[in-house]
Amino acid sequence: MRLAAPLEKLVDEFAKLPGIGPKTAQRLALHIMRVSQQEAAGLANAIIQAKNQVMHCETCGYLTDKDPCAICSDPERDDSLLCLVEESQDVIAIDRTGYRGKYFVLNNNFQLLNGLDLRKIDFPRIFDILDKRQVKEIIIATNPTIDGEVVARYVAETTRPRGIKVSKLAYGLPVGGDIEYIDEITLRRSLDGRNEI
Amino acid sequence: MRLAAPLEKLVDEFAKLPGIGPKTAQRLALHIMRVSQQEAAGLANAIIQAKNQVMHCETCGYLTDKDPCAICSDPERDDSLLCLVEESQDVIAIDRTGYRGKYFVLNNNFQLLNGLDLRKIDFPRIFDILDKRQVKEIIIATNPTIDGEVVARYVAETTRPRGIKVSKLAYGLPVGGDIEYIDEITLRRSLDGRNEI
Repeated sequence: MRLAAPLEKLVDEFAKLPGIGPKTAQRLALHIMRVSQQEAAGLANAIIQAKNQVMHCETCGYLTDKDPCAICSDPERDDSLLCLVEESQDVIAIDRTGYRGKYFVLNNNFQLLNGLDLRKIDFPRIFDILDKRQVKEIIIATNPTIDGEVVARYVAETTRPRGIKVSKLAYGLPVGGDIEYIDEITLRRSLDGRNEI
Repeated sequence: MRLAAPLEKLVDEFAKLPGIGPKTAQRLALHIMRVSQQEAAGLANAIIQAKNQVMHCETCGYLTDKDPCAICSDPERDDSLLCLVEESQDVIAIDRTGYRGKYFVLNNNFQLLNGLDLRKIDFPRIFDILDKRQVKEIIIATNPTIDGEVVARYVAETTRPRGIKVSKLAYGLPVGGDIEYIDEITLRRSLDGRNEI
């Protein structure tokens, strides 16, 4: 015995989502059976609406429902700072720290295993922003992974000749961490990057 | 900075699903942004279709897209056995064991904390099945929880006067388990229910 065909189909669709295994997918599908028609339609419509209305900002690549995005068109933000991140969600995280410069979202799925293709980085667009906004500093905020590191170095080498300061997020101890349990590479980096107090 | 409004809405909708926290909801929503229009529509449509086409079988309560369901209308199945379960997914699990009788799905969200309302059990429908199919044995397969146990006893007391054999799934050691780590109540039950070999 299997579940009714439309229900199996729904389980299969849920199971395509990242981190959702077959058991969870079944639980989600059966949950949909229990909620009201209206609530189920709410989720379905949200998927369609988000897919139809959200796009990448033509300037910075951030996910937005209007172009240019709220960040690019914000006159309060410092045009002279450009922070390069991998994904739109990184913008949210960095903005939460109080950073109020602008961003460029690389939007490439950098993966060494899939053949890290650095040619996919849209330098003409980055250079265009550097010129138009008279950017003084590029802050590279790619993930602290090997892929992120490779991308960071490549971007740094490519943009440095333009006479702009290029910086990168500091490696070091995570606040609230315990030195005893911090991996040796991170600890080495925090030693190398030690600051006078 | 927040995500674009339609994207935030999608995050909120995902976060309503059971077991999906805000971080996972955001990951799922951003995944939808990455997949093709067609793939996103696939999930949205599956939700709508399942909600529109799947209902509870009028006879046994199983989730089905045709009434009576494939189980109730299966002439190969043993009409004299009726297995009572809490939810449709329990049918799948029990069928996997090779059981080929019929089912009755209680479909009540039995929860002691929410006031376990035994009056919600549809005995007229159960009795109707018992009569029409000349059921010889009712196998109560409610969950091995306090709620499931209360429901099981109540159903047993209510149906026994009709002269039908009433049985319940055995408690005992889970196959592959380790006696050292099995809770004492389960172990006590498996002692009480010991079988001669």
